[in-house]
Amino acid sequence: MTKTIDCYFDFSSPYGYLGAELIDAVAARHGCTVAWHPVLLGVIFRTTGMAPLSQVPIKGVYSVHDFARSARFLGLTYRQPGVFPIASQNAARGVLWLQATDPGRVRDYILACYRAYFNDDIDISQPDKLLPVVATLGIDPAAFTAAVNDPAIKEALKRANDAAMARGVFGSPFFFVGDEPFWGVDRLPQLERWLESGGF
Amino acid sequence: MTKTIDCYFDFSSPYGYLGAELIDAVAARHGCTVAWHPVLLGVIFRTTGMAPLSQVPIKGVYSVHDFARSARFLGLTYRQPGVFPIASQNAARGVLWLQATDPGRVRDYILACYRAYFNDDIDISQPDKLLPVVATLGIDPAAFTAAVNDPAIKEALKRANDAAMARGVFGSPFFFVGDEPFWGVDRLPQLERWLESGGF
Repeated sequence: MTKTIDCYFDFSSPYGYLGAELIDAVAARHGCTVAWHPVLLGVIFRTTGMAPLSQVPIKGVYSVHDFARSARFLGLTYRQPGVFPIASQNAARGVLWLQATDPGRVRDYILACYRAYFNDDIDISQPDKLLPVVATLGIDPAAFTAAVNDPAIKEALKRANDAAMARGVFGSPFFFVGDEPFWGVDRLPQLERWLESGGF
Repeated sequence: MTKTIDCYFDFSSPYGYLGAELIDAVAARHGCTVAWHPVLLGVIFRTTGMAPLSQVPIKGVYSVHDFARSARFLGLTYRQPGVFPIASQNAARGVLWLQATDPGRVRDYILACYRAYFNDDIDISQPDKLLPVVATLGIDPAAFTAAVNDPAIKEALKRANDAAMARGVFGSPFFFVGDEPFWGVDRLPQLERWLESGGF
């Protein structure tokens, strides 16, 4: 049976971007598939009492430094966005819509949004900035706009976010292999050993 | 010139324990020395608004799971202490006293305290539990007790903690190579690459 790696992520999360860039290669090495789960960290942080990394005293300065250094360490490009963090619900709703209507495009859409934000400093929280990104993938901007404003899609994202929290997700990226949770791109080495050894 | 790795740590920090067990081998591989800096995370958390990991909703459950799994991943023993977290100022003051009076014993003392707490579930915040650990190292318990109650040592630890925060320390373990900061035992791979390459 093919194993699934569940990948929870927020489009505003630098480590989520790094994880999204890397997880497919991890999955491929172990014959797994990736299930993508967009979440809204802002909502989750209200439950946990946490704050966006860059806004925590002392830790914030380090974090911005670590985002870029971690990218270099992992061989990925990174540019600190001018507006950070951003509201990511429009981009997140797009994932749910594509999963229901055009699942073959989900991965490319996620990476296109992440690269737009963390490589090209495009503020994907703004519909007029997000739509050109969507258009480059051959996705119809009008259909996309209708989808992200669809009350059913909005409600589905809320339910998905609640389900993520109920499963124990409190940050991004957050992975599961079966019931085993792994938080952070820096836990990918543990996740890989888990896949290799069936647990340790 | 021999490089120094500055290692900031709290005796109540599981990842600090894992870092302390590993940093000497990292230093040895690169011809570095380790400078040990005990800090009090409780005081630092009051400045940053952070909370002890295990007390954060949702994140706390994961963290306790991750402490033990990270230890297994790194090949180290770990037992979740019955009382956690603990006040670590007595053990921390002991480091400053030994650095001034018997520096050759500092490393063994740090590892003995950490192993007592995270392997043997000995609550080293309690003087009657800490003193037998100290005694096994050949350190005089009466002199140790006098030292950790010495107002000058107490003041020195407060100043050291303030200096750590001023340098940007907000967690444990926290390393510096020159001015380059590395937070967390999971940043040791980046720290090693930094030492190998002179920065990246």
